[in-house]
Amino acid sequence: MLKLYYAPGTCALASHITLAEAGADYTTERIDFKINQQNSPEYLAINPKARVPSLVTDRGILTETPAMLAFIAQSFPKAKLAPIEDAYAFAQVQSINSYLCSTVHVAHAHKGRGYRWATEESSFADMKRMIPKSVGATFALIERDMLRGPWVMGETYTICDPYLFTLSGWLEGDGVDMAALPKVADHRKRMADRPAVQKALAEEKG
Amino acid sequence: MLKLYYAPGTCALASHITLAEAGADYTTERIDFKINQQNSPEYLAINPKARVPSLVTDRGILTETPAMLAFIAQSFPKAKLAPIEDAYAFAQVQSINSYLCSTVHVAHAHKGRGYRWATEESSFADMKRMIPKSVGATFALIERDMLRGPWVMGETYTICDPYLFTLSGWLEGDGVDMAALPKVADHRKRMADRPAVQKALAEEKG
Repeated sequence: MLKLYYAPGTCALASHITLAEAGADYTTERIDFKINQQNSPEYLAINPKARVPSLVTDRGILTETPAMLAFIAQSFPKAKLAPIEDAYAFAQVQSINSYLCSTVHVAHAHKGRGYRWATEESSFADMKRMIPKSVGATFALIERDMLRGPWVMGETYTICDPYLFTLSGWLEGDGVDMAALPKVADHRKRMADRPAVQKALAEEKG
Repeated sequence: MLKLYYAPGTCALASHITLAEAGADYTTERIDFKINQQNSPEYLAINPKARVPSLVTDRGILTETPAMLAFIAQSFPKAKLAPIEDAYAFAQVQSINSYLCSTVHVAHAHKGRGYRWATEESSFADMKRMIPKSVGATFALIERDMLRGPWVMGETYTICDPYLFTLSGWLEGDGVDMAALPKVADHRKRMADRPAVQKALAEEKG
């Protein structure tokens, strides 16, 4: 049995969808950011980084979305969520997920988490003003060079898809013009039709 | 034959060391940041993100350090650079590398690349002032919770080690007090003794 710690509206959705896609036996536990539960002693014992997601396995606890997504794909090979038998193809998948984690998510994080890297209100305001441009630039590259269509890696659905879907869900709130991103917009619609996506979203809402 | 595009002093060193550790047949090509070569049309055709490293393989080009490190480990299994047969242990390795990429490297990047997320000189100065604290906090967590010793994952050297070594090489310049990081300092010394590390550093100097 796997247990996913998540908070609604966070990147934990990518792992949540992937657990559902894998047909995994899992439970979820919500961490309430409004009461700063991610910094409670109980949660810090699970994830000292005070972030979600965390995945409790029978071997121990995993953190970091790219690692968790690859772990789920490797643990449920029948679901064929990553080309785990082909080192190069798997690296291409991992390259996308690494970019989503370290560049796309990080760009977005400057909207509300500027205190991680600066201290002045004027800096936070500056970062916020740049969000449509900085996040928009990362998605312009995705639109142009990464999203092959219909899925990220082409004809085959992989662990890149729920991760992209999770982060592209923040675009509207970030003030990025979706009209410039037709492939990303189309990918969002295609993802929304998948039962695993509907299941994960319903679980996070409930 | 593999070809690594790198620039001295960048995170490309992690992949460079790993190629040497793997006993791979590889060549290197230096990208000169001083003349903005990473934004030349020739290099943008290799890596549209205008970053290093890039790894040219006989199947195509890979980018993003965590993906490249796992690819090298999987392509040279005899070198035993990652527990690729054990999904959980492999995920632990990937979790460390994802943290190094998306949190540690990103914290450091705010010293000189603030223009990625802000526009005002005052914001850049604010970010720079926070570097010892922001980078220091990421390494405090590594010191306390991640670096098992003697290697990152314990008794076995993995692809986490050259990546940590590469980023810990920036600590002094970032004004982080190494006296508070005895395990990280010890890891640096242990890494410096490895022939593959000496080979990669000599090649980047030459």
